[in-house]
Amino acid sequence: MTSNSQPVTISVVRGSSLQLRDDRVAVEEPLEIRLGYELPEGRAETSISITMRTPGNDAELATGFLFTESIIRDPSDIALVKPCGSPAPDSGNTNVIRVELESGISVDLDRLQRHFYTTSSCGVCGKTSLDALRVSGASSRPLDGTRFDRAMLAGLPDKLRAAQKVFDETGGLHAAAAFNVAGDIIVSHEDVGRHNAVDKVVGTLLSEGQLPANELGLLVSGRASFELMQKALIAGMPLLAAVSAPSSLAVDLAREFNVTLVGFLRNDTFNIYAAEERIS
Amino acid sequence: MTSNSQPVTISVVRGSSLQLRDDRVAVEEPLEIRLGYELPEGRAETSISITMRTPGNDAELATGFLFTESIIRDPSDIALVKPCGSPAPDSGNTNVIRVELESGISVDLDRLQRHFYTTSSCGVCGKTSLDALRVSGASSRPLDGTRFDRAMLAGLPDKLRAAQKVFDETGGLHAAAAFNVAGDIIVSHEDVGRHNAVDKVVGTLLSEGQLPANELGLLVSGRASFELMQKALIAGMPLLAAVSAPSSLAVDLAREFNVTLVGFLRNDTFNIYAAEERIS
Repeated sequence: MTSNSQPVTISVVRGSSLQLRDDRVAVEEPLEIRLGYELPEGRAETSISITMRTPGNDAELATGFLFTESIIRDPSDIALVKPCGSPAPDSGNTNVIRVELESGISVDLDRLQRHFYTTSSCGVCGKTSLDALRVSGASSRPLDGTRFDRAMLAGLPDKLRAAQKVFDETGGLHAAAAFNVAGDIIVSHEDVGRHNAVDKVVGTLLSEGQLPANELGLLVSGRASFELMQKALIAGMPLLAAVSAPSSLAVDLAREFNVTLVGFLRNDTFNIYAAEERIS
Repeated sequence: MTSNSQPVTISVVRGSSLQLRDDRVAVEEPLEIRLGYELPEGRAETSISITMRTPGNDAELATGFLFTESIIRDPSDIALVKPCGSPAPDSGNTNVIRVELESGISVDLDRLQRHFYTTSSCGVCGKTSLDALRVSGASSRPLDGTRFDRAMLAGLPDKLRAAQKVFDETGGLHAAAAFNVAGDIIVSHEDVGRHNAVDKVVGTLLSEGQLPANELGLLVSGRASFELMQKALIAGMPLLAAVSAPSSLAVDLAREFNVTLVGFLRNDTFNIYAAEERIS
């Protein structure tokens, strides 16, 4: 029996008083993702990532990571996802997961590098990062009929917070959610790593056959970085809403690929940084 | 002329009103760190990391990263740090930095992998991560005479906030600072990446000959993860204070290596998760 939070005895300081208290902290453990795939000379297996994550929904985390890194494009690319090895003796969590691709699915290992947004000769810059995304197959989101109501958006943070079970216990997790235009949260996940929370959401949508998610928005509990905007884009989501601030490159990316970007979503107010036509 | 924040025109939604406004967002751009070092067959140069960072103090970011990853141990290991290539045309920032090590400094490239906390056969777990740190040379912090006053600690978040110039403009940056037992902030930096903010602080201390920082604490504006606790440990700092929650593995690491861990440092109150003997 494992849990997303762990008991810990702490000392609580309030002014000049100090008291022992039983508390809980969010669990953080490494997860190694191994990929099995076909080479001309036979099957190969490679360790492609180790991420510090909160245990739970590891299969979705792994497949969501593979999808947002453009390694897989469809649930049918996957033959098998399963935990590998014995549970860790200190926690009972199994911290290695194996994703076997179907025969015939080829893998560009270069793309597995987190560094894929560099080029070898001209240095790196924001423009390079956007170009690399274009090369990887991302394209501008069309302005179809999907619209998100502003009052609906304003109500989302409370719904996300209500879904954050482990945050309530520990005050220490990021959350991400996919929501529809009616404001229903379709899926939400928590994790110590905000990119992991998003990967779990995307992996869940993938397993349910809901990608590309052309009619769903992505909500994140923290800031909107380039990396999170990239994941929304690859998942086909037309809108990213963040409770906190966006970065410059997230704004650039949103404008370049026509993804609606909302920031500082709190207390019935928010800012729109890109593609405001989708907000009604 | 570059800046840590970038102007952007946004739409501000307040209830049913929508207004255009000039605002600023925190700059996020990739930085590639290249390492030059000696091999038996001659000099080599390798790209060891690309991180999304806020431009500024790139040299400190690079050297702090190398130090906290245990690639270098001393300022004298470094022959040269300099920007490389032309400024990016879209931003004017130079986004590649080269660190040349002195002749005779050998590099264990395996250690450059962010994945160093795994082992090949037994799977990964929290215990593995702690063992890997021990192998890399980290040792338990002695309980010497350094003490941190609780009232001093309670006053730190306001001081950090006062030092966060770009946060004031954008609401979008993490901050990290080193402080002494008198409560003076010795150095502070902001960045879109919290690990980058800490690397910049450690790199600054390194360049000033202040490592190991046996009498300084590390303050971070967000959560305390394994990675940040590891950086404090490698920098020799006896205390890590976080404005938000710690993770389970940060607590485990702090207890194993006897580093004082403070969390939820706000409004004159905080929690102590490990080594409370250093707090007076």
